[in-house]
This record gives sequence, C-alpha cells and structure tokens, in this order.
Amino acid sequence: MNTSEFRRRGKEMVDYVANYMEGIEGRQVYPDVEPGYLRPLIPDSAPQEPDTFEDIINDIEKIIMPGVTHWHSPYFFAYFPTASSYPAMLADMLCGAIGCIGFSWAASPACTELETVMMDWLGKMLELPEAFLTEKAGEGGGVIQGSASEATLVALLAARTKAIHRLQAASPELTQAAIMEKLVAYSSDQAHSSVERAGLIGGVKLKAIPSDGNFAMRASALQEALESDRAAGLIPFFVVATLGTTTCCSFDNLLEVGPICNKEDMWLHVDAAYAGSAFICPEFRHLLNGVEFADSFNFNPHKWLLVNFDCSAMWVKKRSDLTGAFRLDPTYLKHSHQDSGLITDYRHWQIPLGRRFRSLKMWFVFRMYGVKGLQAYIRKHVQLSHEFESLVLQDPRFEICAEVTLGLVCFRLKGSNKVNEALLQRINSAKKIHLVPCHLRDKFVLRFAICSRTVESAHVQRAWEHIKELAADVLRAEKE
Amino acid sequence: MNTSEFRRRGKEMVDYVANYMEGIEGRQVYPDVEPGYLRPLIPDSAPQEPDTFEDIINDIEKIIMPGVTHWHSPYFFAYFPTASSYPAMLADMLCGAIGCIGFSWAASPACTELETVMMDWLGKMLELPEAFLTEKAGEGGGVIQGSASEATLVALLAARTKAIHRLQAASPELTQAAIMEKLVAYSSDQAHSSVERAGLIGGVKLKAIPSDGNFAMRASALQEALESDRAAGLIPFFVVATLGTTTCCSFDNLLEVGPICNKEDMWLHVDAAYAGSAFICPEFRHLLNGVEFADSFNFNPHKWLLVNFDCSAMWVKKRSDLTGAFRLDPTYLKHSHQDSGLITDYRHWQIPLGRRFRSLKMWFVFRMYGVKGLQAYIRKHVQLSHEFESLVLQDPRFEICAEVTLGLVCFRLKGSNKVNEALLQRINSAKKIHLVPCHLRDKFVLRFAICSRTVESAHVQRAWEHIKELAADVLRAEKE
Repeated sequence: MNTSEFRRRGKEMVDYVANYMEGIEGRQVYPDVEPGYLRPLIPDSAPQEPDTFEDIINDIEKIIMPGVTHWHSPYFFAYFPTASSYPAMLADMLCGAIGCIGFSWAASPACTELETVMMDWLGKMLELPEAFLTEKAGEGGGVIQGSASEATLVALLAARTKAIHRLQAASPELTQAAIMEKLVAYSSDQAHSSVERAGLIGGVKLKAIPSDGNFAMRASALQEALESDRAAGLIPFFVVATLGTTTCCSFDNLLEVGPICNKEDMWLHVDAAYAGSAFICPEFRHLLNGVEFADSFNFNPHKWLLVNFDCSAMWVKKRSDLTGAFRLDPTYLKHSHQDSGLITDYRHWQIPLGRRFRSLKMWFVFRMYGVKGLQAYIRKHVQLSHEFESLVLQDPRFEICAEVTLGLVCFRLKGSNKVNEALLQRINSAKKIHLVPCHLRDKFVLRFAICSRTVESAHVQRAWEHIKELAADVLRAEKE
Repeated sequence: MNTSEFRRRGKEMVDYVANYMEGIEGRQVYPDVEPGYLRPLIPDSAPQEPDTFEDIINDIEKIIMPGVTHWHSPYFFAYFPTASSYPAMLADMLCGAIGCIGFSWAASPACTELETVMMDWLGKMLELPEAFLTEKAGEGGGVIQGSASEATLVALLAARTKAIHRLQAASPELTQAAIMEKLVAYSSDQAHSSVERAGLIGGVKLKAIPSDGNFAMRASALQEALESDRAAGLIPFFVVATLGTTTCCSFDNLLEVGPICNKEDMWLHVDAAYAGSAFICPEFRHLLNGVEFADSFNFNPHKWLLVNFDCSAMWVKKRSDLTGAFRLDPTYLKHSHQDSGLITDYRHWQIPLGRRFRSLKMWFVFRMYGVKGLQAYIRKHVQLSHEFESLVLQDPRFEICAEVTLGLVCFRLKGSNKVNEALLQRINSAKKIHLVPCHLRDKFVLRFAICSRTVESAHVQRAWEHIKELAADVLRAEKE
C-alpha cells in the first residue's frame, strides 16, 4: 500500500470508525457466537498473494463484528469502563506514524519529555503531593505503565529490592533467598487478583487482611497481622491499599494504614485503578487523602479518563527506588546524555524495554476536553449511578450491597444466591445489556457499572426496566 | 468532539500522517534538542477550558517534531528496525474504535479467537513444529505479548513454577525459597539485557555462558557450566538461546544446546526477537533448526515484519505451563465457557490483565502484503546489508566484525577503540544518519542496521560516503 492509497483507505477507515461509534447502540452488546466460531470463517493459512483492502473491510462485518463484545455500547455495564474518546484515537494515529520506541531519552526525546510533563499535569489535576512530581526537580516522578497489574508488580519489585538491600546492609551474611523467604506483603481481602499475582511473580508471601463491614482495610486488622507475622519471624515489607476496589468500589482507610506503613518501614503502594480518575473533581479529592504516606500511587486514565487503553499512570516519591530494581546498561542503549542527571530513561521504570509514545493521548485528551470537560464527564457518570441506585432502592425486592460512591452499583435480589445467579444468567442471555457479578463475603452480587462515554439516563432507565422484568420472571419461575 | 468533527479531524490526521511519512527523508533523523527542551514550550498545567484541534495540530510541528528521533527515516540505521506499515496503522485505528479489553474469551471472543488463528498463521509461515500450534487441538499455542522482555520473563516464571512443583513433588519438605535459592538460569554472554532482568525479577541466578569465536553459545561451554553448578548443589532449570543477538546478530547453536536442555530437564526458551521475521523465507529457515527442542519460542513481528509496535509473538509447547504459573480466577472475571476446554483466556498467559485487539494488525498486514510480499521485504533488507558489507570490505581502513547474516552489519575502523568512538561521535553529531555502537569482547564496534521500510540502495550508498568522509576527518585529526 503506497501513501496515496493510505490517504484514501485511511479516510475510509475514519468513516468506518465514525459509523461504528454512531451506530453502536443498535448493535447487540454481547455476541451470539460460541467458542471456536471464528476459525472456520477464515482460511487456515496466510495468503501467498495480497488480498485487497475491500476484501478485508468486508470481512470486518462478516467475521470480526459478530464476535465482538461492544465495550462502548451504552448498554455495556460490565467490569469497569475502558476509555474511548476521539481525541485519544487521533493521538494514537499520530503515535503509530511516529512509531518511535521510547526506551531511552535519546531514542526519542519528545516521547520521554512529553510523558514527564503530562504526568505532572495529571498529578496536579489530582492535587498529588509535590513529592510525586518531577517539576520541582525533586526525587519523585511519574511514568505511564501498560496496566495497573504492571504498576503493582513494579512497586512490589522495587520494595523487595529495597528491603533486601536494607537487610543485607544490616546483616551482610543474609542471602537474598533467606530474606525473600521471610518477606511478606499485605493487601485487603478485597484487593484485585493482580496483587496476589504480583506476589506470585515476585516470589514473596502475600497475605489478605480481612476488610471491615464496609469492605475497607483498617488499621486494627493490619496491625494484628503485622504483629503475628513479626512474632513468627517474618519481615513485612509491602502494603497495597486499594481506593475503589473492583468488587464494590470500597476504599481502604489510607489515613489509618498510611502512618503504620511509614512507621514500620513498609512500602505503601496505592492502587486506585478505577477510582483515581474521579479525584480530579474537588468533591471526590478527599478520597485520596493519605496518599502523602504512599511510596507509589497508580490509577488508570485508560479506564475512566477518556484516554484509550493503554495508559496506566504511576507516580513514585523516589525515582531511584524503581530504577534501582531494574537498571542494566548495555552499550547499545547508552547515550551521551544519560549520566547528566537531567534526563529520564523510562526503560528503567518498567517491565518491558520498548514503549510507545502514549503521552500523546494524554496531551490530546487533556487539551481537547479541558479539566472542566473531564470533571463534567466524571460527574455525569456518578450521577447516573446514583440514579440507578435510587431506582433499585425504590423496589423492595432488591437491595444495595455496598455504598455507592462513584460509578458502580452493587445490588441483588433479596434472597438466595441461586436466585441472583438465575437473574444474572437471564440478563446475560437476553443480551440487551451486559453485566458481571462479584462475591461480597458469601453473597453473589450483581455489579452495574456506568461504562460508556455515550450512556445517558434513558439507557439506565431502560436497563432497569429490563432487569425488573427478568427479575419478575425469575421470581415467578422460583415459585413454580 | 462529536462524531462529525471526528470525521473531519480524522481525515486531516490521515493526511498529516501521510505527509509525515512522505516527507520523512527531508527531516533530520536525530533531533537537535537538549534534555529539558520541552517543558518550557508548554503550559505548566492542563487547560481548564478546551483548546481547539487547530492549536494542537499546530503544536505538533512546533513542540513534538523538533524532539523526535525519526525511526522511519531511511537514514535511521540504529538499534534494530521497528515495524511501520500502512495496513498496520489502519488496523490500529479499528483496534482503537472497538476498544475492547481482551483479558478473557467472553470479554470479546473475536479478540481472543483471531489472535489464536493469527498465531497459527504466523507459526505456519515459520514452519514451526505442529506442537506449537493450536489448530491441531494439541497442548501448545501462541499468544501476543507486548515485548520480547515480557516473553522471556513469562517463560522464566513458567519454568520456575514447573521446577518448584517438580522438586516439591519429589521432596515435599523443600520450601519454595529453598528451591529458588538453588535455581540457576543460563544464557549466552551475548544475550539481551532483558534476560538478565528476567532473572532479577524472578529472583533466580542467571549465568552468562561464554560464547565462541562467532559469538554463539555452544554445547561444550554450557555443559561445563552445568557440571560445575550441579557439583556446587545448584539446580539448572532454564536456558535462553538467542537467534540473532542484539549486539551482532549471532546465533546460538540450537542443535547443540537443545538436546542438552531436553536431557537435563531444563526449559529452553528461544529468543529470536529480531531475526525471527526472516525465518518466513525458506533460505533463512535453517537458522531456526532445533526449535523442536524448545519449550517456548518468541520473536517480534513489531521489529521486522511490518506489524507496528507492540506485537511480540510467543509460542509454547504446553499451554498449561504458562497458565499454571499465573492462574487466578476472581468472580468478576469468570464466565460460562471458561471451563469448557474450548476457549482461551489470554490473561493467564501474560503479566498484565488487560490487552488490546492486536491481532487485527497481523491480519491486515498478512493479508495486504501476502506471504510473498513479506518475504520480498525481508530479502530487500538483507540484500541492502550485504551491499553495505561489500562497501566496507572494499575499504582497507575498515573491518567487518561479525558475520553478516541478516540486516545488521558490525564494522569498525581497524585500530583503537578511541578512534572508533570518535568516528561514532562524529556520525551522530552530524545527524545525517543515526547509528548506535556495541561492544564485541573488548572491541568498540559500530552497528549499521537496515531499518526503514523505505530505505533503498541510494540511502545506503550515501550513508557510506558520509561515513568514509567522517572517517577521513577522524584519521586526519588523530595524526595531528
């Protein structure tokens, strides 16, 4: 394909994308296909001679779309939102064209420098403590990771390295393995599975702290675990506090947990993957109070801040803690500025070596929405979740299962898990809307997450009418 | 930005991208900026009210482009190529619009299923042993990782889990830490730094096997290390063999190393990050001989196969080895098909949870180039590197430092490292072309990698004339 064909096909693709977004409400949100649907629809090997672009664009509707779960349909209320906005898509086109691999400053200075400044912009929107910003030439700074899972893992590895160095400095005879055997990390029993996974990968123990009645990690439970583990000879070194859990958007008590971490010399990582975007609104900023105790903080603009996946924002108070865990400098990656102290080689901040020019998406989105536009977007979603909450509360057959703070409503039919499993099954089989469940303690609960950029009150109302109808069917079937 | 504005702006961006690619030869390949150049050019915080698209598009030339290292300039000969093609860019636009997060089959069946089939297509292009393909419903399969670093890490973690399980099955009293203390992984002293990093992250020893005169890992050196480590009570468990090293594109001897790994029950991971793309050509396929001994194999279509970053292709012989290292199933990610045995939840194959619909890029590129078009592309690059090699060989002041097999030429002025460092410094200061160096043993060497999709013989000839002129200056300066 030459450049003039790209001009034509690119514009056709822009129209395809625009048509898709414009018509998404008319598509069934969850597909009808069964596992294995796709393989019989396409050849079993790549063509020797080129196919035409027409062939491919036609196959999109025939082969791809029938198997797509439409995350941006206004009837998609599953998981958490994933961001989608036109400014981010435009930026991604530019990112693809520049196509630099920004592992070091020299590999493309603009890629590194825009990222550093965008992370400062975003940090200021959240009113993060200055220690996390680069602007003041302090020891902290921000980096774009691919996902919150990677941010948690990177934080855990940095904490592990720091703990090993500290303990070996005090007792040089200790081997790394002898120390790792005793290291123990903590998170709430509501934390995301990626935290447990980070422990597995890092080869350290990870203990779940029982959350309180509001599904929050509190000082007393953490303190109890620490004491019993220290008594058993273990070495607590890392705590993940979650702001906005995946199950029910509960908030660990940072103001209680933070000071304990600082006092006990444990790295505190704050994971606000979903909720973090809301902290740009002054009325939600209090939920972040206590971040001043953290060593690292992460949230995903690619969830709720209109920056298309992937863009997971991570800040640390001390850059050298991250880079110290990873730093290796082969000759082919050295460049003349790297020891100047002025530059950042982001490869030392992350698991992969390569990285795309993702900060362009932040730059386009922040500028084209403006802070006020982004705040308005968050507020609209929160308002819609409260609207759904009040609909649920008006129906005595249902109950709300956790406090509704942001865009997630956990609800269920009063009664058995079985009846709620049946309800969810009917909802997802009807495929008019899409939800996923969670467990809160022993209760099977339905999660209604406000997701789509284009979801409006009318969609929420229709979803609720639909749920009520299916609930009536379920309850009727149960009686029979 | 509403959809009708996106239609307009998207088309303007298509033209911007097309103009950029068309005019890239006229841009200076390496930028003039100094560290810190960007911050003073933009506001110190995000705007409250929206900026216009015109503001932003104007700022691209004013703020971004002056700091870009143009990886797709035909005068870029640094690192290794990173892929760029129009079909991949078109696919990425579609990927952004669908915007699904394909962590499970249910999260978007098309995203998972196209990936599985594309990995089979690609595996067949390489004539991978059937054990690595999914098609035959065997135990193997392919997955798209973000980078070769992640593939190496995932393989190492899977091997670690497998070794721990095996040893604990034999000796249940052994703790994980006691085993990890003794685990030892191996790679050649020419392996990429990401291998050492995987060892650091995984908390296991990584030993460098001295390579032979051709910078290849051979049986004898590996065997020697194994024997001495076993004698010291260590447990060898993992070997990374590199096909096409980053330093000089040397090839470890798979046919020697493979059988040892199988015999000694060590996981063999084959890293062909750069070279792998060439194996689609029958005349280069022999370089992959011995892959039948491997447990996992990886290369980067995002380097040399025209699929824009990120797209790192990884195959394993036994899917359950990967998923066993990571599998965790919270309720909100469960879905009705997951235990059917028919489906794939790719989140168990990788470090992050989220993943984009990256197989669209493979599908577009494979179809719009056809296998023959991709082969022609590889052959052209190899031919250009041999053309450069022969230019170097015609000049008695220079020497070739490693066999030229694919698209990389390692060369230097006969003489001291100092004179070669001076030459590289002049080349990169002149900014007409861009190169990076490497060390081969104690020699400072210049790497000339054929990178750009649009590089032609004329660019290579011009680059060589330029290098000769600067070499003359360096040699003259040395005599003075």
